[in-house]
Amino acid sequence: MSQQKPSAPRGMRDFGPEEMFRRNYIFSTIRKTFEKYGFLPLETPAMEKLETLTGKYGEEGDRLIFKVLNSGDFLKAAREKGIDLSQYNSLQLVKHISERAMRYDLTVPFARYVVQYHHQLTFPFKRYQIQPVWRADNPQKGRYREFYQCDADVVGSPSLINEVELILILHETLTALDIPGFKIYLNNRKILAGMASVIGASDKLTALTIALDKLDKIGHEKVLEELSNNGFDNNALAALNDLMQAASTQNDVMPFLRSFLQADELGMKGIEEIDFVINTLNSLGFPDDCISVDMTLARGLDYYTGCIMEVKVPDSGYGSIAGGGRYDDLTGIFGMSGLSGVGVSFGADRLYDLMMALNLFPPFAENRYTYFFLNFGSDESLRCMQMIQKLRSHQIKCGIYPDSVKIKKQMEYADKMHVSFVCTIGSDEISNQTIGIKNMQTGEQRTITQSAFFNELGLLS
Amino acid sequence: MSQQKPSAPRGMRDFGPEEMFRRNYIFSTIRKTFEKYGFLPLETPAMEKLETLTGKYGEEGDRLIFKVLNSGDFLKAAREKGIDLSQYNSLQLVKHISERAMRYDLTVPFARYVVQYHHQLTFPFKRYQIQPVWRADNPQKGRYREFYQCDADVVGSPSLINEVELILILHETLTALDIPGFKIYLNNRKILAGMASVIGASDKLTALTIALDKLDKIGHEKVLEELSNNGFDNNALAALNDLMQAASTQNDVMPFLRSFLQADELGMKGIEEIDFVINTLNSLGFPDDCISVDMTLARGLDYYTGCIMEVKVPDSGYGSIAGGGRYDDLTGIFGMSGLSGVGVSFGADRLYDLMMALNLFPPFAENRYTYFFLNFGSDESLRCMQMIQKLRSHQIKCGIYPDSVKIKKQMEYADKMHVSFVCTIGSDEISNQTIGIKNMQTGEQRTITQSAFFNELGLLS
Repeated sequence: MSQQKPSAPRGMRDFGPEEMFRRNYIFSTIRKTFEKYGFLPLETPAMEKLETLTGKYGEEGDRLIFKVLNSGDFLKAAREKGIDLSQYNSLQLVKHISERAMRYDLTVPFARYVVQYHHQLTFPFKRYQIQPVWRADNPQKGRYREFYQCDADVVGSPSLINEVELILILHETLTALDIPGFKIYLNNRKILAGMASVIGASDKLTALTIALDKLDKIGHEKVLEELSNNGFDNNALAALNDLMQAASTQNDVMPFLRSFLQADELGMKGIEEIDFVINTLNSLGFPDDCISVDMTLARGLDYYTGCIMEVKVPDSGYGSIAGGGRYDDLTGIFGMSGLSGVGVSFGADRLYDLMMALNLFPPFAENRYTYFFLNFGSDESLRCMQMIQKLRSHQIKCGIYPDSVKIKKQMEYADKMHVSFVCTIGSDEISNQTIGIKNMQTGEQRTITQSAFFNELGLLS
Repeated sequence: MSQQKPSAPRGMRDFGPEEMFRRNYIFSTIRKTFEKYGFLPLETPAMEKLETLTGKYGEEGDRLIFKVLNSGDFLKAAREKGIDLSQYNSLQLVKHISERAMRYDLTVPFARYVVQYHHQLTFPFKRYQIQPVWRADNPQKGRYREFYQCDADVVGSPSLINEVELILILHETLTALDIPGFKIYLNNRKILAGMASVIGASDKLTALTIALDKLDKIGHEKVLEELSNNGFDNNALAALNDLMQAASTQNDVMPFLRSFLQADELGMKGIEEIDFVINTLNSLGFPDDCISVDMTLARGLDYYTGCIMEVKVPDSGYGSIAGGGRYDDLTGIFGMSGLSGVGVSFGADRLYDLMMALNLFPPFAENRYTYFFLNFGSDESLRCMQMIQKLRSHQIKCGIYPDSVKIKKQMEYADKMHVSFVCTIGSDEISNQTIGIKNMQTGEQRTITQSAFFNELGLLS
C-alpha cells in the first residue's frame, strides 16, 4: 500500500527548534514577570471531565470543545442503558460515549482547582498558568486549534491593588519583550452597567456588551444598527451615539463619563474604581501614554464584573495581545460563591506573530554550539571527546560530528548549525598537541597548543 | 440541582505550586543537559491524526490510545455513508467518528515530524522533546493517564559516538539531580538476536525478548516456563538457563558472551558495539561502577535494533527511571527508510516519585517573596508600592498584602508563603521615613531609615 506523507492535524502545529527558541523567549519573559510579582505556578490536566466544561462557554463554546471518546468498548455502556443508537443524534449521543474533554481555556480549570482544593489553599491565592488549550474552531490565519494561554489570577482579594499590579505586569512584560507603542485600554463593567441603566436598557446589558465588543471590527453605524435590532429605542441609540463619539474624539473621557453617569450609583462606583487605578499608577510613575480609559471597551466574556483591560498595538494590524479583568463570582459555577478574582492573560501565539512581523526576536546565539569539533577518524575523535568532556564540565556547549564523513559535509553542518568556532584535531594536531580553531563569524583560522586553548578559556588543561 | 465537588479526571493530576517547583527542577535539569550536548527543542501537537498512531504500539497500544471525537455533528458523516449505527461495534465505529487521537509517546510523532519535514532538516538531526503523553491505562500507584516524557534522539547518524554521548547525558543528568547509586545497564539487540540464533530460535526472537523483559518481575523459572510454552526446546532452555545464571552471578559477562556467541556474526557485531561504547567511556574517565553490561536486558519496544540501555537505582523499589536505544528504521513506518536513530528517555514522573521518597529536592527558596510588605491602609500601601516598584526594577521579588485586613491575618499569610523578610510601613514610619523589617527565619526585628534600607541592598533610594 502506498503511503501518503504524514502530517500534523489541521490547525495544529509542530514547533521546530527556531520556533521553540522564540516561543520559549516569550514564555520565559512572561513567567519571569509573573514570578517576580509573587504568582505561583499551577498546571492542570489537558483533559477535564466533560461536565466541568459543559455550559461554561455558551452554546457556541460547547460546540467547540474537543470531546474525548471513552476508552475501551464505548458503545457497550450506552447499549446496556438500552439506548438505540440509530435514534440518537450526535448531541444526544455524546454524553453516553464521552466523559472527558480537552481544556478550552485556563480559567474554568483554575476555578475547578480552587473549589476542589480550597481547604488547602492560602488566600489570596495568586497563581499563574502557561499551558495549551484546544478549540475545534475553523482554522484560519492567526487562529489555531491548539494554542497557548498565559494567565495570572488573584483569587480571594477584592482590593484594587491587584488590578494595579496586573497592569504593572502587562507593562513590564511587554516592555521586556520590546513591543513598541503598545497601549493598555481600561474600562469597568460597572460603567457599562451604568450606561445601560442611564439609557433605560438595564435589562439589555449583555446585548450592549456584545455589540460594543464588535465596535473595532464593525464601526459605530453597525453597532447602533445591531442595538436597534435588539430593541434599543431612539433615545438610547442617540445617547450611545454621543458616547461613542466622545470615546473616539476626546483625549480624556472621564469628564464626559462623570456627567453621563452622575445619577447612577453603580456607574459612579465604576468611575471611582478606575480613578483609583489610574491615580495609583500615576503615583508609581507609570507612563501616561501607555494607558487610556476606553469607555467602549467591553470584552466578550460574561463573567467580568469590575475593571476590564485589553492591550493592543494601535495600527499594527494585530488585535488584542493581552487582556483581563475582575470577576466577582467565577467559582460560583462550581457551587462556591463569594470569592472575587481578577486576572490577566497573554495571547502567546498572537504575540509571536506580532513579534515576527516586527522582527523583534533576538538571535538566540546561546542556543548554538560554542565549539564544534570535526571528526577525522576514531583516534582523533577520541581525543576530541576528551577535550569536549572537559569543556562541558565547565558548562560550555560543544560537540563533535558523530561520523567521520567528508570534511566538506561536516563544515556544511557546522555552518547550518551556526556554531561559533570549528575545532580540528587531526593526526598532526595529536602528535603536536595542538588544535585548529576557526572563527566562523570572521573566518579567522589559527592553530595553538591544546594547553594554550584551555588557558585562554581560563581552564586547566 | 445540588452540585458535587468538581474534580480532575481519574488518573490525571493537578500540579500545585510545590509540585510545580519540584517538577520544573527535574525538567530544567534534563533540558539543560540536553541543550549542552547540542540537542535542539521540538514540540509536536497534543493530537495526531488517528492514522498516524494506529498500528504503531501493538494491539494493546491501539486500545490505550485516547481518541478524540470529531467536532460538530460527528454522526452525520457516518450516516451519510449509509452506516447503520446499531449494527456497529465500538472498534468499527471509531474510525467513522474520530479522526484525531492523543499523543501516546514522543517517538512516533517525532518520526512523523522527521518524515514530514525531512527536506528542511539538517542531518544528523538532534532533537529533544519534553511533553506530556496520554494513555487510557488503568490508573494505579505510579501509573498515570497523563504523564511527561523527556526524550533526546539523534536521527541520521549510525556512529556509536551517539550512544556514548547519550550515556554521558544519562549520567550527567542523574548526577546533577543527586540520584544516589544509579546504574546504567547496557545490552545490544544484536546480542539477543545472536543468542536466539545460537540456541536455534531465530524465528522466536520477539518471544525471547518479551520473556526476558519480564525477568526482573517474574524471575528465571517463570521466564523459562513462558519460553517453554512458546515452543523453545530443552536444549534452548538449558542454554538460556546458563546464560541467566551467568548474568546474575558474574561481574564481567563479556568473556561468557564472547564464547557463547563466537560462531554468530551478528552476535559478535553486538559485542563489538558494546566494547566500543564501554572502551570509549573508559577513555573519558567514566566511572566504572555506574555502568554494567546486562545480557538479559531486553526492553519492550519492538523497534530497537542495536544498543539498548536502561537506568535503575538497585534496591530502591523503583523500576527503570530512564532508558533508550538504537532503532535502525523508525521512519520506515511512514515510508522513509534508511534513517538510523538512537535516543534516550527520562521518566519524569518516576524520577519525581523516587526523589520524593529519598527527599532529594532542594527547598526552592528563590521562589518566595524576599520582601513582603504589610498593608496598613491606603496611604501606607501607596508608599509601600512605590518602594516595591523600586525593588522590582532591580529584579527583587517582593509584594504587598492587597487588603488592609487585620495584621495577624497578614502575618499568617507571610508565614505560609515562607517569605524571607516582612516589611512594615505604618504612619510613624511614613513621617520618620523609616521601615520596619522582620527576618522571618531568625525572628529578629529592626527599624531603619528607608534610605539605609536601600543602601544595604546597594541601591539608590
